[in-house]
Amino acid sequence: MANELSVVGRRLPLKDAYEKVTGELKFAVDISLPGMLYGKILRSPYAHAKIVRIDVTRAQLLHGVEAVITYKDLPREEWIERSFNYRGPVLDERVRFAGDEVAAVAAKDKFTAEEALAQIEVEYEELPHVFDLEKAMEPDAPKVSPHGNVRQPSIYEWGNLEKGFAEADLIVEHKTKMGSQQVAPIGRNACIANWKGKKLTVWTSTQTPFQLRDELARFLKMLQNNVRVIGLPTGPSFGLWWSNNFHFITVFLAKQAGRPVKLELTQEESFATVKRRDTPVSYGKLGVKKDGSFTAIQFKHYFDNGAYGFKSNPYESVSDLWGGRTPHGRFEMYGVSTNLLTCGCMRGVGDISMTFCMEQLIDKAAEELKMDPLEIRLKNHIRTGETIRSRDRPYKAFGLAVPDIVLSSCGLDECIRKGAEAIGWKEKWKGWGKPTEVCGTRNRAVGMAVACHISGAKFLGCPSAIVRVNPDGSVNLLSGVGCMGQGAETTQAQIAAEELGVPFENITCVQGDTETCPWSPPTVGSINAHQTGMATQAAAADAKRQLCELASGELGADPADLDVKGGIIHVKGQLKKGIPITDVTSKIRPETLSPPSIIGRAWKNVPESPIAKLFMAHFVEIEVDTETGEVKIIKYVAAHDSGRIINPDICENQVSGGVLLGCGFGLVEGLIFDKETGRVLNHNFLDYKIFTALDTPDIESIFVDLIDPVGPFGVKGIGEATAAPAPTAVAQAIYNAIGVRLEVPITPEKILEALGK
Amino acid sequence: MANELSVVGRRLPLKDAYEKVTGELKFAVDISLPGMLYGKILRSPYAHAKIVRIDVTRAQLLHGVEAVITYKDLPREEWIERSFNYRGPVLDERVRFAGDEVAAVAAKDKFTAEEALAQIEVEYEELPHVFDLEKAMEPDAPKVSPHGNVRQPSIYEWGNLEKGFAEADLIVEHKTKMGSQQVAPIGRNACIANWKGKKLTVWTSTQTPFQLRDELARFLKMLQNNVRVIGLPTGPSFGLWWSNNFHFITVFLAKQAGRPVKLELTQEESFATVKRRDTPVSYGKLGVKKDGSFTAIQFKHYFDNGAYGFKSNPYESVSDLWGGRTPHGRFEMYGVSTNLLTCGCMRGVGDISMTFCMEQLIDKAAEELKMDPLEIRLKNHIRTGETIRSRDRPYKAFGLAVPDIVLSSCGLDECIRKGAEAIGWKEKWKGWGKPTEVCGTRNRAVGMAVACHISGAKFLGCPSAIVRVNPDGSVNLLSGVGCMGQGAETTQAQIAAEELGVPFENITCVQGDTETCPWSPPTVGSINAHQTGMATQAAAADAKRQLCELASGELGADPADLDVKGGIIHVKGQLKKGIPITDVTSKIRPETLSPPSIIGRAWKNVPESPIAKLFMAHFVEIEVDTETGEVKIIKYVAAHDSGRIINPDICENQVSGGVLLGCGFGLVEGLIFDKETGRVLNHNFLDYKIFTALDTPDIESIFVDLIDPVGPFGVKGIGEATAAPAPTAVAQAIYNAIGVRLEVPITPEKILEALGK
Repeated sequence: MANELSVVGRRLPLKDAYEKVTGELKFAVDISLPGMLYGKILRSPYAHAKIVRIDVTRAQLLHGVEAVITYKDLPREEWIERSFNYRGPVLDERVRFAGDEVAAVAAKDKFTAEEALAQIEVEYEELPHVFDLEKAMEPDAPKVSPHGNVRQPSIYEWGNLEKGFAEADLIVEHKTKMGSQQVAPIGRNACIANWKGKKLTVWTSTQTPFQLRDELARFLKMLQNNVRVIGLPTGPSFGLWWSNNFHFITVFLAKQAGRPVKLELTQEESFATVKRRDTPVSYGKLGVKKDGSFTAIQFKHYFDNGAYGFKSNPYESVSDLWGGRTPHGRFEMYGVSTNLLTCGCMRGVGDISMTFCMEQLIDKAAEELKMDPLEIRLKNHIRTGETIRSRDRPYKAFGLAVPDIVLSSCGLDECIRKGAEAIGWKEKWKGWGKPTEVCGTRNRAVGMAVACHISGAKFLGCPSAIVRVNPDGSVNLLSGVGCMGQGAETTQAQIAAEELGVPFENITCVQGDTETCPWSPPTVGSINAHQTGMATQAAAADAKRQLCELASGELGADPADLDVKGGIIHVKGQLKKGIPITDVTSKIRPETLSPPSIIGRAWKNVPESPIAKLFMAHFVEIEVDTETGEVKIIKYVAAHDSGRIINPDICENQVSGGVLLGCGFGLVEGLIFDKETGRVLNHNFLDYKIFTALDTPDIESIFVDLIDPVGPFGVKGIGEATAAPAPTAVAQAIYNAIGVRLEVPITPEKILEALGK
Repeated sequence: MANELSVVGRRLPLKDAYEKVTGELKFAVDISLPGMLYGKILRSPYAHAKIVRIDVTRAQLLHGVEAVITYKDLPREEWIERSFNYRGPVLDERVRFAGDEVAAVAAKDKFTAEEALAQIEVEYEELPHVFDLEKAMEPDAPKVSPHGNVRQPSIYEWGNLEKGFAEADLIVEHKTKMGSQQVAPIGRNACIANWKGKKLTVWTSTQTPFQLRDELARFLKMLQNNVRVIGLPTGPSFGLWWSNNFHFITVFLAKQAGRPVKLELTQEESFATVKRRDTPVSYGKLGVKKDGSFTAIQFKHYFDNGAYGFKSNPYESVSDLWGGRTPHGRFEMYGVSTNLLTCGCMRGVGDISMTFCMEQLIDKAAEELKMDPLEIRLKNHIRTGETIRSRDRPYKAFGLAVPDIVLSSCGLDECIRKGAEAIGWKEKWKGWGKPTEVCGTRNRAVGMAVACHISGAKFLGCPSAIVRVNPDGSVNLLSGVGCMGQGAETTQAQIAAEELGVPFENITCVQGDTETCPWSPPTVGSINAHQTGMATQAAAADAKRQLCELASGELGADPADLDVKGGIIHVKGQLKKGIPITDVTSKIRPETLSPPSIIGRAWKNVPESPIAKLFMAHFVEIEVDTETGEVKIIKYVAAHDSGRIINPDICENQVSGGVLLGCGFGLVEGLIFDKETGRVLNHNFLDYKIFTALDTPDIESIFVDLIDPVGPFGVKGIGEATAAPAPTAVAQAIYNAIGVRLEVPITPEKILEALGK
């Protein structure tokens, strides 16, 4: 099958390459409307307080101020779980973290807006706060959420845990704790809201245009057709730009002012007031037999929701990766509210954190059993056809019967084998806690980690697509997904071109506009290539069927016996006797005296498994300077089973980005909160370090290019997975270099401290 | 059936009312892009000439000039008939009318662009020219078109003409000649072109977004998906804003400059360089029996194509209106090229001119036979089920067999009866050439005319539509038609709401954007309510079918037994036991774990007759001041059979506009060409008179609201038809007032001359 494909699998240029290279790609901050006002938000200095008095009179009287809103001007929102919207109520009487919204203004320019903020008088009644995740779980902790600080836990269980541990020859335990990573967006986001009578249009950089539209309509009690969200590329988002409070605030400012309003977040606001990755704490316990096979896994995982996060499940695949072959297991996962910046999904979600604990558990066991670390993983990981343990979550959520679901494909063996070969594992791995070589103060070592991640999720909703074939055989593809700049248009265009049998150049893809594109789930969970791709493929197939029906007379064959390839409609196997698509699309038809209009449409979801599973094995070679504590990454190998690779360029870029983000989390990244106030102290790129181009190691991407039976052309997806094992692989290598297991971010200070320096 | 409808038939507000009232509706002149240049066109002072030398060096050297193009920079266009594109080759070595394009520039501002035009040196070799239509037909006339000045004539014939006239008791003949009306657009049009790599986006006010896209792609040898035309409302267009040369020039300027270019036409350019209505000359001959029944009709009709018009058929319905009952007939129609401003279709096309001759023929016959003018018309006009004589044209054009096609519906009887009653015909009509009353110098009289017009035409292409149902049951309707501001969105929304069984407020309609909307024929020939409406209805029915299928389980009934009304899906006849649409659109479905995405789609053309026929009888009461020659319209009654009326407000507005345009043509409007150079002399609103608000008489609209069996909900259409009989009705009333038949425009000078003053 692989050789038959002509568009999928090729390194084709990004559809928006021209705009990107020339800087013409429009982000939300680039949007400007005539008569537009500028919005600004007043934020709480307190981590937890009640507003007892708020007086906006002086702000309102300021020349050039056109709107001032406080909680008194907005409808009260129910404090409910809003799927895909980790945000608080829009302007509340109570503030729950330092940076929470208190009031907002719109004025003729930014300076006047800032001056107006200064004129708002607020009197707070401070309330007791809690910042620490484990303290927030205590019964007498300050109550952050009216639903209690600990939300409904997420629990899976299979087999009999006690029996499992009883059968084990060895039981290992491990606790891990990680810092809080920030998406650290390079670009700043903005929201522009414009009312025309009853109709609202919103421009913003977002991953979730339809979810923002539907949320706005619900909040404003409007029909969804009267709200248009034009989703612009996000640049980096990684979970940050969903339906955020500043969108709602902008909309209300514009409504009150009766003019368009633009609200641009500052860098500090982006860092300190929107969202961040949780601070996870994992307690893992693993039962193993002498031969290395697992008998039981137990996990207790706690993660921070911050002030307004609503996650009750970290979205992990650890239970799937190891649960398929382990007869007994129990996973308990708790989301906990604190008076810190809200947490939400970020690239890799629960897998980046739970992998960190699980992989160290496995290595601890292997170390005791003196078993090869690759061997023990190969022995225990799930295989095609084995049971997915987390299968029940989406079904349970909707009160549906849980079907027995098995894994559609797994290429982890090959990832481990090829990755090990590429890094030179055999030569370089000298045992646990042992460096490959020591040269002066520099210890060099290798480390590795494997992980599994989801790709798409049924409960996110059902992607749809429209494929319109033009008279000249070219195609306009409409797809509602948020266009983040990651290559989603290109990927969908390749799928449509392949299925429809036309050149890549023939496809133009429109995304992200809720008025013209069909409904789509959010661009999260690596949904795009896999699930959106299914809708695109199905819509293209629908259009192809119409072409074949129209050509069937001329070709003297049943439509079912026809196919399209290279723009030629033909009886299968007889390409040379075919007719060009344009013979159908531009030819006058007697019954209508005009050419036909070909419109393919589809809505599709993962038909067989609730989620496709991506597998990966990351290998890293590092050098730790025991004198300075500095860590240098020498070489990184990322071997991925993402099903068939649609565009290797795009996937390699995803790997590079994910590895840098993961290594950054492992080594340098982490928000610092003021211990007294909970304020984010490092809210800019001087104080918050990320991996930059200069820190980028030699990264080798390996794709095992397995063909999954479910995805479109065998595709499974890639985006989030690329980050999942990275901090762990780095931490394992550091352990091998200096013999100490450390919590991430593993800063030089921690290393020196561990080395007693 | 009528009583069952809840949305169609209602006076609902225009979907774009807010934008119109607040002035926020964006026309092409309102569009502005960052870094945009301004284009200007150099035009020929000669009616016919060859460019022997053109030097642009000095223009190019001017500071701020970024592009200069002449015919040397553009691909040579074949001189072919471009359907729906009455325009010349884009920049040619030869100019064929005074105002023809010679060169164009793009510069940083309009003043620099104008200065650059002045710096272009052109040497012309003048060629002999011809302005008069009948002279241009002579064998030794200057050759305007390489295909000859007289194009392939359009000829229909039925029965045996000689026999028909032999059977007649009376033969009358009449010759008419009319002036050349200009659309006289109040707003100025503009084209903004922007290239991003290989991709071109064009903003313009146009009736024909898809035709412009397809023409641009053909001319530029690009794929259609790489050209995006964003069609903005036209304000008045009436045939003017199709694919015009200035669009192509703008695109080339932008390409050469590498920056966006805006080209705004001046008022003079709008009037004198784009298009106008032809100057028709008709020779009619009618054979009548003593009882008033027609035996034969012969028509020779000549119309001006100007320099670049390509019409070979005036698109008339006169042969259909009277041919159904007249056993013998022959219609010969000739389009003739001259060295004047290009002619093209304008509201009412051939019907406005041929009705002018035909109606006077009929009145002449009635006068001789002393027969009531209403009586003779009632006796001879076509009835439902009778043969349409012009049926062969669209089929012949594509070499297809011509089916025998009969009329689907005709309400002309009722139009005549109700119109006569409303004007008080019985009391006021005193005989041919006789005023109702004379008061001092003022003669008051009534006049009337009937006409027939097409609505949509198969050969224009096949409209399509996409109906997306949102989770809350609201709808986004995509339709590719050009949005002219006439209410097309509202009309389509009413059709979709009615068919889908949801409130009008639930529908938002997007039109005119070739990237996001499905292909559509041009918005011409009153196609919209009728043919586009069919596609909209079919797409809505397709969406409804999906809703019913999804609800069928819960309602325990076959989908075919279900219907939707007021947002409730129910077993037909059991509305109270139904379920709301949102139960289907927002409910999680077990197989996908998400709500469905409902996408209806359709492409539809007139299924039974090639064209629907609109009928109308206009009655007018006027007063002629025999001292000054001034004509005042006292009262106007327009009775229309347009099938079912979707929105009476919109149709009444169409009637008002059409009547004013027709009366203007009859009384005041007409381009004046310089006799030496052929230049348009009255190219502004001071020199070119139109009917304004102050001239507007009391207009009464009557809709017989007949239900056509073909159109959506029985609709037939209205736009163009409203103008067709108006100049004739006025001329007939003037004849009755002063006893003289005059050529239009019937100016005070002509009246005074006719009265020997």
